[in-house]
Amino acid sequence: MMIIMRTSASQAQIDAVIDTLQTIGLKAHLSVGEERTVIGAIGDGRPVNTATFAYLPGVDRVVPITRHYKLASREFIPDNSSFDLDGIQVGGNGIVIIAGPCSVESRSQLMEVAWAVREAGAMLLRGGAYKPRTSPYSFQGLGEAGLELLAEARQATGLPVVTEVISQDLVPLVAQYSDVLQIGARNMQNYSLLHTVGESQHPVLLKRGHSSTIEELLMAAEYILSHGNRRVMLCERGIRTFETTTRNTTDINAIPVLKSLTHLPVIIDPSHSTGNWQYVESIARAGIAAGADGLIVEVHAHPEEALSDGAQSLKPERFASMVQQVKAIAQAVGRSTAVSVHQETASNG
Amino acid sequence: MMIIMRTSASQAQIDAVIDTLQTIGLKAHLSVGEERTVIGAIGDGRPVNTATFAYLPGVDRVVPITRHYKLASREFIPDNSSFDLDGIQVGGNGIVIIAGPCSVESRSQLMEVAWAVREAGAMLLRGGAYKPRTSPYSFQGLGEAGLELLAEARQATGLPVVTEVISQDLVPLVAQYSDVLQIGARNMQNYSLLHTVGESQHPVLLKRGHSSTIEELLMAAEYILSHGNRRVMLCERGIRTFETTTRNTTDINAIPVLKSLTHLPVIIDPSHSTGNWQYVESIARAGIAAGADGLIVEVHAHPEEALSDGAQSLKPERFASMVQQVKAIAQAVGRSTAVSVHQETASNG
Amino acid sequence: MMIIMRTSASQAQIDAVIDTLQTIGLKAHLSVGEERTVIGAIGDGRPVNTATFAYLPGVDRVVPITRHYKLASREFIPDNSSFDLDGIQVGGNGIVIIAGPCSVESRSQLMEVAWAVREAGAMLLRGGAYKPRTSPYSFQGLGEAGLELLAEARQATGLPVVTEVISQDLVPLVAQYSDVLQIGARNMQNYSLLHTVGESQHPVLLKRGHSSTIEELLMAAEYILSHGNRRVMLCERGIRTFETTTRNTTDINAIPVLKSLTHLPVIIDPSHSTGNWQYVESIARAGIAAGADGLIVEVHAHPEEALSDGAQSLKPERFASMVQQVKAIAQAVGRSTAVSVHQETASNG
Amino acid sequence: MMIIMRTSASQAQIDAVIDTLQTIGLKAHLSVGEERTVIGAIGDGRPVNTATFAYLPGVDRVVPITRHYKLASREFIPDNSSFDLDGIQVGGNGIVIIAGPCSVESRSQLMEVAWAVREAGAMLLRGGAYKPRTSPYSFQGLGEAGLELLAEARQATGLPVVTEVISQDLVPLVAQYSDVLQIGARNMQNYSLLHTVGESQHPVLLKRGHSSTIEELLMAAEYILSHGNRRVMLCERGIRTFETTTRNTTDINAIPVLKSLTHLPVIIDPSHSTGNWQYVESIARAGIAAGADGLIVEVHAHPEEALSDGAQSLKPERFASMVQQVKAIAQAVGRSTAVSVHQETASNG
Repeated sequence: MMIIMRTSASQAQIDAVIDTLQTIGLKAHLSVGEERTVIGAIGDGRPVNTATFAYLPGVDRVVPITRHYKLASREFIPDNSSFDLDGIQVGGNGIVIIAGPCSVESRSQLMEVAWAVREAGAMLLRGGAYKPRTSPYSFQGLGEAGLELLAEARQATGLPVVTEVISQDLVPLVAQYSDVLQIGARNMQNYSLLHTVGESQHPVLLKRGHSSTIEELLMAAEYILSHGNRRVMLCERGIRTFETTTRNTTDINAIPVLKSLTHLPVIIDPSHSTGNWQYVESIARAGIAAGADGLIVEVHAHPEEALSDGAQSLKPERFASMVQQVKAIAQAVGRSTAVSVHQETASNG
Repeated sequence: MMIIMRTSASQAQIDAVIDTLQTIGLKAHLSVGEERTVIGAIGDGRPVNTATFAYLPGVDRVVPITRHYKLASREFIPDNSSFDLDGIQVGGNGIVIIAGPCSVESRSQLMEVAWAVREAGAMLLRGGAYKPRTSPYSFQGLGEAGLELLAEARQATGLPVVTEVISQDLVPLVAQYSDVLQIGARNMQNYSLLHTVGESQHPVLLKRGHSSTIEELLMAAEYILSHGNRRVMLCERGIRTFETTTRNTTDINAIPVLKSLTHLPVIIDPSHSTGNWQYVESIARAGIAAGADGLIVEVHAHPEEALSDGAQSLKPERFASMVQQVKAIAQAVGRSTAVSVHQETASNG
Repeated sequence: MMIIMRTSASQAQIDAVIDTLQTIGLKAHLSVGEERTVIGAIGDGRPVNTATFAYLPGVDRVVPITRHYKLASREFIPDNSSFDLDGIQVGGNGIVIIAGPCSVESRSQLMEVAWAVREAGAMLLRGGAYKPRTSPYSFQGLGEAGLELLAEARQATGLPVVTEVISQDLVPLVAQYSDVLQIGARNMQNYSLLHTVGESQHPVLLKRGHSSTIEELLMAAEYILSHGNRRVMLCERGIRTFETTTRNTTDINAIPVLKSLTHLPVIIDPSHSTGNWQYVESIARAGIAAGADGLIVEVHAHPEEALSDGAQSLKPERFASMVQQVKAIAQAVGRSTAVSVHQETASNG
Repeated sequence: MMIIMRTSASQAQIDAVIDTLQTIGLKAHLSVGEERTVIGAIGDGRPVNTATFAYLPGVDRVVPITRHYKLASREFIPDNSSFDLDGIQVGGNGIVIIAGPCSVESRSQLMEVAWAVREAGAMLLRGGAYKPRTSPYSFQGLGEAGLELLAEARQATGLPVVTEVISQDLVPLVAQYSDVLQIGARNMQNYSLLHTVGESQHPVLLKRGHSSTIEELLMAAEYILSHGNRRVMLCERGIRTFETTTRNTTDINAIPVLKSLTHLPVIIDPSHSTGNWQYVESIARAGIAAGADGLIVEVHAHPEEALSDGAQSLKPERFASMVQQVKAIAQAVGRSTAVSVHQETASNG
């Protein structure tokens, strides 16, 4: 923490800041400039309540020095983290492609899409059983019945499953059915949920909140990591800005920024980050070109009948085309596009 | 829903939209302009999945007509809603002043502040026992011990208590100790929590999410109201913008906008909406001048020692001065500034 | 400038930063913490190109210390600046009320409004002759003919005139007719215009850009002040955020923040900051309650026929009511509400 | 324009809206729903002052139907526009690469970079002679001397030149030296400048304002196009959001959105859109992958000595590597990566 004094700060005010620092066990280190004094607080690296000092007379601003996340940082773990999901490596040289419907709506709907995305090259199946919806009157998901259908699709197609968990008491149930626990954008700062998911030791897909900074995303990951659960992938899914042509604004900068700040795998969700199926392919390509480790994409066989997010869902044939385009980009950036374990299995199926 | 076709849309594309509308039970109503055709969908007022139509060829845009909240709307209930909290009327002609520390830290800290804010004119006591913190390494609140201290302060000072509940399984416990359940900004779209709080039938203080639109706030209120719990007050606590001089940007427009769109009481939280004690008085005055029904303010006897939010907490003497200023504004806008029940009691105490 | 090194920075990297600092004539001052080294750059207060250092290996972040504006700062001039406009004091104890139509449309339109706002208590007349419009096909103002009408209205009513100047070559012409040169939000960073207006020595009303930070506004003022033109008032007119219920979001925090950072007068424009006449009164009251030195408000006798901004224009009778409400608030915050010079003149006219 | 009435609107209020429509020569077309009436205004496609109707009693909202730009729209001109710059096709199948320093600082600085970027594969040379700077105390560019150096570099290397023009009176001078007139982000809504540049008939590179919507960018282009100047390329250079890790947020969605809404060429500026040289390559790749027609990148031989934007400038060797990466991506998306005319010339030079 650096405490920047006003140009008009008196010596007594400077002394008061130093005293306060010493009271809480920190050493003060003064830089006296022509115009201002800056007081550095030297401690043992533990976070300090910087706000305390903003209150003191003569203080202009307080600048924190220590980053608030540690386990998630690349300074702490320099090499890329990766983990295995049933033979699929997340965070390795290959690109992970996750696809499926926004919501699980019925057995036939799910099975049709699951087979289609597997054929097209998806490696994991996504599908929502519990849906956080802005309106209490909208479809809220099939709940446990949806989980059962996902498990059935998993068994049939061999694709590991990613599904969202929306409250801490559902964690054990969802973990029983799903290979990956997804924490949705709206719950990125639901700390009760982060704690429970951290304790579960289950793989996690953590989505960035639509108005969360990159630092806040890393702090949310830190909640999970601090329970010893290291299998966490991060997901950029668009942020809220003044632009309204698209549902969200894909923060493509977040891809290289995250790759530089953290060792965790980073994927992109072009369906939510655009909200419009017409732009999904472009942004999928851009995400991989920018360095993302994978994609999560909404696919629906009949988007016009979807109970949620129809406008941003690709039809299976468009998804298949997208996979080909993404593979070309992956190759151009030196990422592996090897046929996945599940596609090999498929040829025997 | 109005479906605006592209200027280049063909008759076949227009017909396809009309067919789709009829399939889901809506009547189509065409406006044929010089350049474009607009198709109105006429139904029974139930929300429609507008996204479905965005997908169809030839469609330029889909404009929803029906608002997504109903119980919260002033069109549904034209008169102001108000409710009683132990003799304090929320949403009436008088201004409600809620004050206290960000976190409950200890018995002595809480008692000192509780008595001070009561003397200064506060009508309810706020204080956090469960704290949602960005960092897993920050103080997370005293939990149930904090609730017990709040109950003790309530008994001593006679001030009803407002405290935050951060997950659905804590609702029964918090409701046992607190007069009002606060839903924090980070949980405004935690629908599991909204459901449970709605079912509790306990009075609610619902804070706007830092990046939630006014419409989303009203939708969150709708979740609570739809369970028959009508004692809900809304709180503007600042939104996230590009401006970084202040922690948040007080959306002062939200005060008259909310008062026009909803019958629910609306209060303002100038502590969070500025993040800086130096601006709290100005924004408290502005909030009441704009038409707010009350205030929630952080007060700490020793802000420099506060375990959270010290920078935005007023000392008791500043708070007392703020109350006087706010009363002058209240009077100027024709609001009652009658001495509250608890202050009368205080003079006998 | 403080240069914060990465925790992994080597001694050689630290030395390289120090060398670079010395090359450009700055002294380095080290704070060696447990985890990181912070290097303070001590100079003579002139702005340094901080970006240079962000490029060096081992550097985590660079934090500027010196503020970039000086003449505009309250640290430089502690007392409020004020100036006189034909007997009206701007920046003094009294509240300045500026009103009139968005655009000058015709002699009859302007005269009707000018007399009406004078009767209601306005002290200056606003009206646009040159209109910056988003569409090339929209009404662009009457140009010089509009300026002539403003001069005529000034002579008739005695109200000094505020009008916008949209390019540097128009400054001499507009200055000939107008008492105050308004720089609109879109031109806040049009530096050619700022220079010319600064050199003109004419009083200036500088509007904040809709996406400009408070610091950028002060830097824009610095451009004008640096030419020796000290008669500058600042105007908060709403910023662009994710909220779309209102045209802009009034940054009410900016009022006390600006009053603390600068000595310049600060006014509020509730017409643009809301974009909706229904909210203008509330926000006018809030602005004065927050500490603004005045208001600029759009008034039109027939808003439904206005060639621009009809939706946010008050009718004269609403404006008159607003003035009364604002006076009550001004009194509550200890501001003078004395009848203006021009109203006294009016009774003789 | 669709006028959506409140559910509580009376028949008289509906009639009043219809009357007002007819007064201004529009036909009214009613859709009477279960809850609300929607009134469509049918005219001849000219923009209508929608605000007029927002003012009328009983009106809930007004929704514009007609887009405000026409000449810029793909509905008006379905095929991609392209134009030639000295043998370089902008907007064709090939990718256009523009590179050079932020500011022209000296002959030696400019020549060194110009030759280096040409060697690496740049097709046009950028460099600022007039610099719009936030602070009046920052380097403001060499002015005409800078233009002369650019002309010299052009003659030596054969690279056509792109440089910014910051005010309308400089247009003739800048057009004399530069092949392309750049309109910077801060001037995107400087309509005087847009008019003059439109009239100049000189090729234009129009940058999106940092807080301008995509629609506003297209409206700004419309200003230029409406003067018959059709050689306009648009540039996404990052928008201002709440995220502060990067200087701006690259709106990568804008690439496919613009390509779908307009026929004009679209390029990306990864230097400004990230503000950090470390992320420039990733975002350059992403931009081309998303469908951009080219890139504009800042390159400096000694970024640590740059008078502006050093932190976001690539060194020539990084730029050369970036060009190779971008070519690989271009190939992957089916764009030509043919050696440019100037590189062929170079081998003879």
